[in-house]
Formats: sequence, C-alpha cells, structure tokens
Amino acid sequence: MSQLRVLIIGGVACGPKTAARLKRLCPDADVTMIERDSLISYGACGLPYYVEGEFLNINALTHTQVGLPRTAEFFEKTKGFTVHTRTEAIRIDREKKTVTVRSLDSGTETDLPYDKLVLATGGSAFRPPIPGIDLGNVWFMTHPEHARTLVEEIKGQGLENAVMVGAGFIGMEMAEALIYRNMSVTMVEMADQILPGVLDKDMAAYAQIHLEDNDVDLVLGERVVGLEGDADGRVKAVRTDRRTIPADCVVVAVGTRPNDELAREAGLFCDRGILINDNCQTSDPDIYAGGDCVVNHFINKTVAQPLYAPLGSTANKQGRTIANHIAGCQTPFPGINGTGVVKAFDYTVGRTGLTETMAKKLGIAYESIVWGGPDRPHYMKKARYFLIKMLADRRDRKVLGVQVVGAGDGTKRLDVAASTLYYGGTLEDLADIDLAYAPPFSPPIDPIAVAAHVLSNKMDGIARCMTVFETKERMDRGDVVLLDVREPDENKMLKMAYEKVIHIPLGELRGRLDELPGDTDIVTFCKISLRGYEAQRILTAAGFERVWFMEGGHEAWPFELDYLEM
Amino acid sequence: MSQLRVLIIGGVACGPKTAARLKRLCPDADVTMIERDSLISYGACGLPYYVEGEFLNINALTHTQVGLPRTAEFFEKTKGFTVHTRTEAIRIDREKKTVTVRSLDSGTETDLPYDKLVLATGGSAFRPPIPGIDLGNVWFMTHPEHARTLVEEIKGQGLENAVMVGAGFIGMEMAEALIYRNMSVTMVEMADQILPGVLDKDMAAYAQIHLEDNDVDLVLGERVVGLEGDADGRVKAVRTDRRTIPADCVVVAVGTRPNDELAREAGLFCDRGILINDNCQTSDPDIYAGGDCVVNHFINKTVAQPLYAPLGSTANKQGRTIANHIAGCQTPFPGINGTGVVKAFDYTVGRTGLTETMAKKLGIAYESIVWGGPDRPHYMKKARYFLIKMLADRRDRKVLGVQVVGAGDGTKRLDVAASTLYYGGTLEDLADIDLAYAPPFSPPIDPIAVAAHVLSNKMDGIARCMTVFETKERMDRGDVVLLDVREPDENKMLKMAYEKVIHIPLGELRGRLDELPGDTDIVTFCKISLRGYEAQRILTAAGFERVWFMEGGHEAWPFELDYLEM
Repeated sequence: MSQLRVLIIGGVACGPKTAARLKRLCPDADVTMIERDSLISYGACGLPYYVEGEFLNINALTHTQVGLPRTAEFFEKTKGFTVHTRTEAIRIDREKKTVTVRSLDSGTETDLPYDKLVLATGGSAFRPPIPGIDLGNVWFMTHPEHARTLVEEIKGQGLENAVMVGAGFIGMEMAEALIYRNMSVTMVEMADQILPGVLDKDMAAYAQIHLEDNDVDLVLGERVVGLEGDADGRVKAVRTDRRTIPADCVVVAVGTRPNDELAREAGLFCDRGILINDNCQTSDPDIYAGGDCVVNHFINKTVAQPLYAPLGSTANKQGRTIANHIAGCQTPFPGINGTGVVKAFDYTVGRTGLTETMAKKLGIAYESIVWGGPDRPHYMKKARYFLIKMLADRRDRKVLGVQVVGAGDGTKRLDVAASTLYYGGTLEDLADIDLAYAPPFSPPIDPIAVAAHVLSNKMDGIARCMTVFETKERMDRGDVVLLDVREPDENKMLKMAYEKVIHIPLGELRGRLDELPGDTDIVTFCKISLRGYEAQRILTAAGFERVWFMEGGHEAWPFELDYLEM
Repeated sequence: MSQLRVLIIGGVACGPKTAARLKRLCPDADVTMIERDSLISYGACGLPYYVEGEFLNINALTHTQVGLPRTAEFFEKTKGFTVHTRTEAIRIDREKKTVTVRSLDSGTETDLPYDKLVLATGGSAFRPPIPGIDLGNVWFMTHPEHARTLVEEIKGQGLENAVMVGAGFIGMEMAEALIYRNMSVTMVEMADQILPGVLDKDMAAYAQIHLEDNDVDLVLGERVVGLEGDADGRVKAVRTDRRTIPADCVVVAVGTRPNDELAREAGLFCDRGILINDNCQTSDPDIYAGGDCVVNHFINKTVAQPLYAPLGSTANKQGRTIANHIAGCQTPFPGINGTGVVKAFDYTVGRTGLTETMAKKLGIAYESIVWGGPDRPHYMKKARYFLIKMLADRRDRKVLGVQVVGAGDGTKRLDVAASTLYYGGTLEDLADIDLAYAPPFSPPIDPIAVAAHVLSNKMDGIARCMTVFETKERMDRGDVVLLDVREPDENKMLKMAYEKVIHIPLGELRGRLDELPGDTDIVTFCKISLRGYEAQRILTAAGFERVWFMEGGHEAWPFELDYLEM
C-alpha cells in the first residue's frame, strides 16, 4: 500500500492540531501543511492581553511554553510533518485530487496531490465597507502583527483617544486593554446593547454599568458610517449616524467571516461557512474542514439552525476529530452550544446555549429567570455578587441556556451549565449534580443549582417573579406597588426611586398584611430577592392573587437608585 | 381534612431547609422543628475560616447576610414554622406517631404528634477512645462555640504549638487556619498519606509537599495513642505509637459518625447511617431522613456500596427532596459522587467519584492517568500548574473519577467532572463538552479535556505512560533508562537525580535514535510530558517496543530533584 498523503490548508489552530495528531496516529503518513502567512500556530486569542500588558514579549503567542518558536522547522523536527509557509492554495481539483498552490515569495505554482485534504482556512475579520476603513491607525485584531504595531504606535505616536467599533468579545477585550493603556475609550455598537447575539439585553445592561464604571464610554444603537482622516492619512474621527467622535486610534471588531472561497469554488456545500458532518467531512468525503471556516450546529440538535461561532477551542476539537477519522477511528464531533465567555475588568460575562432572544425567535416554549447573589458564602472575603439568567423548556424542563454577568465566578457555573446542555439535562438534573462544595469556592447550594431551583419553582407556579425590566416598565406606568421587605437600616441606605413603595421588613410581614392594598399588583423585593421570594409566598398564601418578586433584587437593578447622602 | 403535622428533629442544615421549603409549598401545614442545641441553622463549614481570621465576627455563621440572627423567632416570623431549641428527642413511637421530647432547661417531657417525621439529627465528631481526650485545650471543630473558644484561648493563653489529629478535610482547613494564626502546626495521620479515602497516595504526595512548604509538619502513618496533660489539666503533648509531640493545643478531626441512635431505637434500618430511599424516606414511609445522619449511595448506582459522606451541600438537597415529597411532589434525590474539595494554602485539592484505591478494591476494570499542566494559557500571569488524575472504565469508557491537586483552578474542573459522572458520560463526552474558553479562564483545550484525551489515548494504546511512582520504583531498581527530551537550558537547570539519563532535545530525537539502547526499558519525560508523549510516539513509531512517558513530567515529581546551584 502506498503512503497516505494528507494535505492541510491553514496553519493556525485546526491545521497544526490535525497534522500533529495525525502523525502521532499514523507515523508513516505523508502530512503537509501549507499556510499563506509566515507565522503559524499562534495564539490569536491572546492578542488583547498583549495589548493590555499582561505579558511583554509577543513571542509568547508564537513560541512554546519553554520558548521554542513554533516555526515550520519546529513542526517538522518535533512533530514530523512538512510545513510550507507563505504558500497559498489557489484551487482544488477534486477529480485529480490535487491542490494548486502558489509560493508568495517565488510566485511559483505547484500541484500538490492528496488522498485526504483538510481545509483549515480560518476566518477573516469583517471589513465594513465604509469610507476611511483603510486609514492609518485603524486596526483589526487578528494577527500578532496587529497587536505589536498597535502597542508600538500607542507609545510612538502617543495615541490617546481610542474608538472600538463593535462590542462583541474582541471589542470588550480590546476596550479593557486600551483602558489599561491609559487611553480614553469609546465603544460604538450598532445594536442597542453590548454583546448582541451573545447576551439578552437585561444581562447586557448589567454588564454595561460595569464598563461605564471603568471609564468605557458606550455609544449604543449607532451605526458607524465612516472614518475621517487627517492630512497624513491617519484616522482622526469616527462618524456615526448621529455624531462624530474624535479618535486617533480605531480598532474594528465587527465579526468574523469564514474563509470558504476555496471550498465554494471547488463546489463544496457552504452556507455561512463550510458545511461538515459529524466527522468533519465536507460534501466531498475525502475533504475535511474544521475551525473558523466551518459552520457548526447545536449539540443535541435542539436547534435546527446552523451556528457560526469561530473559537479556538472548537477548532482544536475538530482537528482531533479529523485526524482520528483519517486514521480510521470515528470520534464524531458533537457540535457546540454557542458557549462564550469574556473577562470585562472585574466581571465575567458569558453564556452557553440559547438566549431568551433566540428562544423567542425559534418559537420555543421557554421559561426564564434571573437570579442574583454571591458566588461564595457571604462570610468569605472573596464572595462576589453576580447574576445568572437561565432558560428551560416548558415542555420537558430541559435547560436551554445560561448567561452569567458579574464579579462572581461565572465560568465555573457556565461550564457546569454547558455540561448539562451537552448531556441534555433538565433543571432538576442541573440542581442535583454533586458539585464540589467548600466555603472558599461556593455556598452549600451552588448558585447554578439555586438558579435551577428558582426557575423550577417558577415553572411550577410556586415562585412568581418578574425581571427588573418588567418591573421598571410597570413602575413607569405607575400601576404597581413595590413592597420592600428589607430591614429598616437597609431601606434607609438605599431606596428605589419610586413613589409607591411600602416598606415592611419580612419578619413583620405576616402581622401587617392589612397594610397592603388588595386591589393593586404588588412586586416584592429585597437585596437579592431571597426575602422577596419569601414575601411573595407569604402574600400568595394569604390570598393576594397578583403578587410577584423582583428577580435578582435591587442588586440586579440597572437603573437609578436613591442612595442615602452622607 | 385536618392540618398536616410535620415534626423535624434537628435544626442545623437539612432541618431548616426542609421546614422552610415545606412552609413555602404548604403554608397551612403545622411544621415544628426541634433542636437540642441553643443555636440553629449555623454554617459549620465556616468554622476554620473564622479561626483563620477570614472574618472577625463569628455571628457571620449564625446570622443572615444582612445581619439578622437566625433564631427560633426569626424562623417563626419569616418562614412561619415553630422552633423549639434546647429540646431533645428521646424516643419515637411509630405506632402512635409521636416523639417524646425533653426540654433541656425545664426537664419536662412532652409527646409531640406527627403525621410526617423528619430526622435531621446530623453527625458527631468521632471522639477516639484514648487517654487524655477530655483534657483542656483539646478541641473538636463542629460548633461555633468550639471555634470561638479556640481563637480566644490562642490569644488568651498564648498557645503556640498545635497538633492536628487527622488529615481529612477539616484537618487540612484547620492546619492552614492555625498556620495563619502563627502557630507551629504538626499534623498527625494514622494513614501513610493525607486525605486518606479522598485521594490516591500519588496525588496526596503532591499535596503534602505544598503543606510542608507552608510549614505544616506532617507525621504520617502514626497512630495517636494518647494525650498528656499538665498539672492544670491542659494538654501538653500528643503521644503517637512512635513519638511524643509537644502541644499546647490539639484539634481532633478524625471523622464524623451519623447520629442514628434515635432511628435505630425506633427500629429503622441503619447501616453506617440511616438508610433512605430516593425520596429520603426511611424504612418507615412516614419518617424521612436527610443530612449527616443518613448514608448515601453513588449516583447512577455504579457502585453498590453505601457511601457515608456528610456534607452541607447534600444535606440541603435532601431537605428539598423531603419537603417536596411531603408536599406531594416527587423529586428524587439521585445520590452523590463523593465529591469533596478543600483549599490548602494556594492549592485546590479534591476529588469526585472513585479513586484508584476504591476502583481496585471494587474490582473494576479501570484505566487511569495523571496529567499535569497549567490551568490557563502559559502567557497569562494567573496561569498555575496543577495535576488531574482521571479514571475511566475500560469496558464502556465511562469516567469513574477525577482528582485535582495544585495551584490551578481545580474546582471548575471537578465540577465539570462531577457533571459528567452525574450524567454517566464517557471520556469522549467529557472532552467534547463546549466549555467556556477565553485566555483569562482556560486554554483552548481545557485541562479536563486534555486529561480525558490522554486517558483515551492510553486506553487505545496510543499513549504509553507510567506514573511518577512507577517510574521511581523502576529507577530504584535501576532497570530503566530515562530519556530527557527537554531543551539544553532546561536540562542544565534541573536534573532527575538518577544515573541513567540520556538527554536528547525533542527536536533532535528523530535524527539521534541510534544513541538509544534497544535492549532497555525507556521512560521519556519533559516538564509536563507534552514533549515526553511526543517522544514516546516517535520511539514507538521507530520500533522501540518498551517505551513509556512519565505522566505529568518533572513538575509532578514528588521526590528529590537536582537543581543547578547558583
């Protein structure tokens, strides 16, 4: 039998992973990886952290842990596969099973034969077609060179006013990085919230307060229509549909597009990315694809829609699946949940699964709640408040999605939720997992379990609650009475800015029910709505039919509050 | 229909949880909780953190987040159930459905009738029957009073030399707490490792180094035979079967025993705790039990043996199950995985599911590996090294257990592993969960997924590896050659203390295979054995039949190493 020839196009994440794994499984295979760029196998996700100053040598992103550069030679010597950098794939001949490649240095074109072809062509930052996008001091943030030059120019030119175009994950990371570089930062986002497509608006609102507290100016719901330049061809302002913002530095991060041209031209099925099966095979079984060039589907196929969510974690998993399948071992890639997370100053912000917006669009019969509270027992110094939003299917109580925002340890809870989504678990399952409990890490009932309990209670009609947004709407209409069940000291320090608030501490509530109006809707609240929930139960038991507690308590309130002036 | 009478015996965790939940579900039920002690609903898990100085007012453990004392009156007013403290249950009459209780203040005995009875009698610290156990300055650590007096006496008497008897979870927490109180701390443990029953010996060994680095003197494999007192009746030394250790302060934490006497006397089935079904009913369906007085079983019943693992998290879950079932709603408690975690200085130490020791005893056909590496990308300042040990069933590849030890974020990985155990997932499942990835939180392939991959590779015969312990044994016998595939600088800085080490950097290995002996077993290694694994694959492919890599690399080596002297 002749030697198996595997050709891999793309050398950043999925490509090298496929090649390395394949050589371990099939040492005799002839594995060649080509990459258009001169750099390969770099940690693009680390770029904002270089800009931030988390590490000072950008080589950290292109070198191994012990400092060896991950060059073509490195891979050839340690992993045993061949690498051609600065080599571009021009076309695939599926009949002849060859790929025509061109050396960017010599211009020479060659036909490389393959038995199995792997497309790991990645994605590209979307370049919005607006005037001025090619001006100087306008950066995209997808390559180490971008981060290196940005830092160099901030120092060299003394750049001061940055505008982030786009409030997605990279936008958030870059905003923080530039704040740490002592720049003024304005973030412009077309949607009327940060992280559109990632978070629901209520959760985004809570994160937005934290960004603003950290001096990020948010300009939401405005579209960037152009960039203005100075005489030297450098950007000097960002124009939106409503204002002009001075800027000597612009970072554009408005999404990634799959590099699927090669696949399209070869007649492979594509739809917002290359379509693949569970083995990461394209519509041509001898051609595999993985990483940012493919479109994914939801785990468990709960949702029929494809999901384009380019991430290094997914790219690596797909590389493994591809290598295994080529080597004769089937380890299907099960899909993704759209899990994503970002650190935003002291907050962890992320989600897994469906948001409420998505569930609504998909016509799913869902129920949702927002829970707020500390991530550890309140007596521990490291205890931090955060919000969890959870959605479940009304029909089978399966967990549909979880969002976290706040200073609490949100990734741990996201990962447990992602596990539950993976396995198709219900609210009851999620609450029953035997999670690791000790005071330095979590309270006896973990917040993710509490959130599942609250949602479970809501679905069973035991807990009746409304979000802070619904409450605010009702307050704006003035057709609701708020019942503050906190202690007198708490009420004195902090009040809801609303006229119709009745204050009865929870401990006195059972004896003072006659002070409550019988003919008006009542919304109970406290700090985090543990007592608010108890109050709702007491009122419901006492025959009050229209009573709710406010989800998350006043800690989750993203609007104005009246603080006691000292 | 007459009012449902529910009597709950025990007021610390499961009791109040049951009562509060039940009153929310059945506001009309007559719910009474009795407790022998004067305190109820306190956070016993927080005691070591009070001793440590994490918080200064012990009321934090007995008061709500907003500072209200959780007294009988508090529960009556806010939750609507009746509480009798300092009231002891003497006997249960199952025929008449009454419990005879005695007031500890007045001595009066009363018969309380019940329709449903809940036993939440908790557990007690085991008091080893040794001379001197009743001396002054000998503490158990189960009640706020213990922690309060300990701190008071450390200050008042100027105590300096503490001996911890027992190296379980509480022993570990107390050792750390007393070190932070500037005491000399010796920890005596009968087993030849810390956390016996929780960790395998190899994982424990790694944690032991960290304890010793933090000035905890470990005395392992010695049994405490008695405590010696001075003229004032205060402890002055701890005697083991091999030595006498001076001590002016002794904390004993050698396990918890279920308080199941009342249940036994009432003829309820007990075996290392009260036996319960999935609804937390005892052998008498009108009597429920939960918390530290019951014995649990493994989730998925993978293991037939009962499991006594008293934990506040489990107690709360069972309280909810009990309340729901009494209220007519069946939400079975699925069991536990023996998940446990403890912070030990900068380390997180814990496990979920089976250890290797347990799997061996149970005759399970398992495979296991130890993985070591950073918890975040190496370029992030917060990246910390840790070890993950993972076991899976050879027959169906289901994950059996996970242990973590090290400075990395271990609880997150434990919780994901606990989720996988809950759902009965395989290694492939665990590796495929769409976990939340961003550089501040994890590398693109999460350590728990990498560990699953390595174990998967080992089971498939792709990765051939041995633990540091096996390697050490082979080195002691001298019948193995070590192959160091690190870079020259690394080799210069740090060497394995062994004569037969061949050093060939990984990048040169393919060209220098002729330098290796063909007739000897070879163990490859590097810092964390990523390169060690690659080297093993290269040698295996080249026809070397007896080659392994050392799991976890030299970072996981708990024995002597030769460092370059500067």
